[in-house]
Amino acid sequence: MNDRFLRACRGEPTDVTPVWFMRQAGRYQPEYRRLRARYRLLELARDPALCAEVTCGAVESLGVDAAILFSDIMVPLEPMGVAFDIREGTGPVVSAPIRRAADVERLRPLEPERHLRFVGEAIHRCRERLAVPLIGFAGGPFTLASYLVEGGPSRDYAATKRWMWTDPEGFQLLLERLSEAVAAFLAYQIREGAAAVQIFDSWVGALAPEDYAERVLPHLRRLVQAVRPLGAPIIYFGVGTATLLPWIRTLGVDVIGLDWRIPLGTARAQLGDQQAVQGNLDPAAVLAPWPVVAAKADAILAANGGRPGHIFNLGHGVLPETDPAILRRLVDWVHARPVGEGGRGAHG
Amino acid sequence: MNDRFLRACRGEPTDVTPVWFMRQAGRYQPEYRRLRARYRLLELARDPALCAEVTCGAVESLGVDAAILFSDIMVPLEPMGVAFDIREGTGPVVSAPIRRAADVERLRPLEPERHLRFVGEAIHRCRERLAVPLIGFAGGPFTLASYLVEGGPSRDYAATKRWMWTDPEGFQLLLERLSEAVAAFLAYQIREGAAAVQIFDSWVGALAPEDYAERVLPHLRRLVQAVRPLGAPIIYFGVGTATLLPWIRTLGVDVIGLDWRIPLGTARAQLGDQQAVQGNLDPAAVLAPWPVVAAKADAILAANGGRPGHIFNLGHGVLPETDPAILRRLVDWVHARPVGEGGRGAHG
Repeated sequence: MNDRFLRACRGEPTDVTPVWFMRQAGRYQPEYRRLRARYRLLELARDPALCAEVTCGAVESLGVDAAILFSDIMVPLEPMGVAFDIREGTGPVVSAPIRRAADVERLRPLEPERHLRFVGEAIHRCRERLAVPLIGFAGGPFTLASYLVEGGPSRDYAATKRWMWTDPEGFQLLLERLSEAVAAFLAYQIREGAAAVQIFDSWVGALAPEDYAERVLPHLRRLVQAVRPLGAPIIYFGVGTATLLPWIRTLGVDVIGLDWRIPLGTARAQLGDQQAVQGNLDPAAVLAPWPVVAAKADAILAANGGRPGHIFNLGHGVLPETDPAILRRLVDWVHARPVGEGGRGAHG
Repeated sequence: MNDRFLRACRGEPTDVTPVWFMRQAGRYQPEYRRLRARYRLLELARDPALCAEVTCGAVESLGVDAAILFSDIMVPLEPMGVAFDIREGTGPVVSAPIRRAADVERLRPLEPERHLRFVGEAIHRCRERLAVPLIGFAGGPFTLASYLVEGGPSRDYAATKRWMWTDPEGFQLLLERLSEAVAAFLAYQIREGAAAVQIFDSWVGALAPEDYAERVLPHLRRLVQAVRPLGAPIIYFGVGTATLLPWIRTLGVDVIGLDWRIPLGTARAQLGDQQAVQGNLDPAAVLAPWPVVAAKADAILAANGGRPGHIFNLGHGVLPETDPAILRRLVDWVHARPVGEGGRGAHG
């Protein structure tokens, strides 16, 4: 078993920097597009054999150091009573948005053992096939709430924030229920065999730091405390979180995912070496000619300066227009740099 | 003439903190919606009498300390040969996106005196009616380029960035042409009577700092150098620019606009007191109950700590669902706090 990824999560030295990519199984792959011509996204996620095929296929084509279970952050919401559809090019669309405490009261508690056995089954199948650790995941409570309240993706999260400020009790109840569900779901994935879990709190970067600290962080703290005893490393990721890092740092997760807007060296200096970092190549950068990609990868390795506890990744999910061959080349490139020497290529 | 806004731009003391709002003339106003029922956005922008009515009406209803000319950042592109439409709820849609040097070569140089006389005329009319300074504006070169290349608003700016890295000369030529046009347009607005100008570089926050520094900043620098001799204060604003501030600081503008993701005190500490700052209430925060709005406004004034050179504003444009009465109350609230005592309300 290749344990580079898990060693880096724990801040232990590795021979080379481990690599994986958010959304490494996805529309950029011809084999995924072929499957999607026959199945909807949620059909793939709910069928353990197809899910394992998509999850493991990506690892095998790319040569990455970790698998991430193919799924969608909306999946655990369905058994809670939320009807939604995932529309191509748009994202999740919720039929009846949740906007008051009474709507929250109607959410059913998530029982992953009963509701999401297909996830456990997919994890078992992946584990049998994989020679790298499998990452389980769930959406962060604020991010999930934003889809439930807005009814879909949003530019400004106005309805979500309005509720957060207008009826704090109702909104906090929603975050509480979601956090409980996420904690249960992550714990279930770990028990079934996920070696690490990532909390995708993609949209928290829409919040002013004081709102994040006051209204979201307490829920995340309880969530992390609930999952931590299971022993699997926890990764926390959000987009545009540069000014939230002082608070994210206090969460007690093992790995902090960074997007490409914050230089990795700056983040490292702010965060210290107690927690590992993951990132942070601009996902659009892999559309550039190879010398640009290589120089940018080298610059990230150089910014890390050879310290243990760095997992190479993009700063957000792989874009659909990405060439799979470039991702593969990028994995090989990072794997060819012994840790501590990664920066050389960027300068000499 | 109320000169609080201009004094603050220059870092001079003021009795109270000047206030204006980005997109203070817009869909949130019933009077604007009534006009828009009869005229398209570009019709309003191109008719000096209607444009002055919209521009000045907002100032008079809100009691703000500055007017901003009603227009759209796409307006100067039309005489350059770009065909586009502004679609309700979407934004600008460009008929034939620009994606290679040959497309750039076809752009005509902007001659504002000839092409945009309606803007000059609108400025004259506003000046006759207004008792506050009028702000002229233009889009930043990268932001304009992003619309031209993507063909409309974008989530990831993949086509823009791809071109930036794949054909640096072609893309730099585009930024150069746009910068020249923007410089000419801003200079024209100042000559016609704009007392200050704002560069709306809304989408630069999509760039990694090194790309901003290497590929965009040089154009902005030349743009600022071209406009600076005219003597009107220059405001530079972008969304999500927390990690770009070390570079924005070097631009030599008078005022740096901040969005709500960076605490104003943090920005002040990074930027020093050489340049004024503008912002930075979350535009969604004015949807909250009044006590929340007041507390957040007080916290921003407190974070500024009574230093001269702060212009109160939202961190981005007014949202369409905003209640005009709350904005008016917010203006009065900020105006009731003598500078240096603004913070008291937040704590006691």
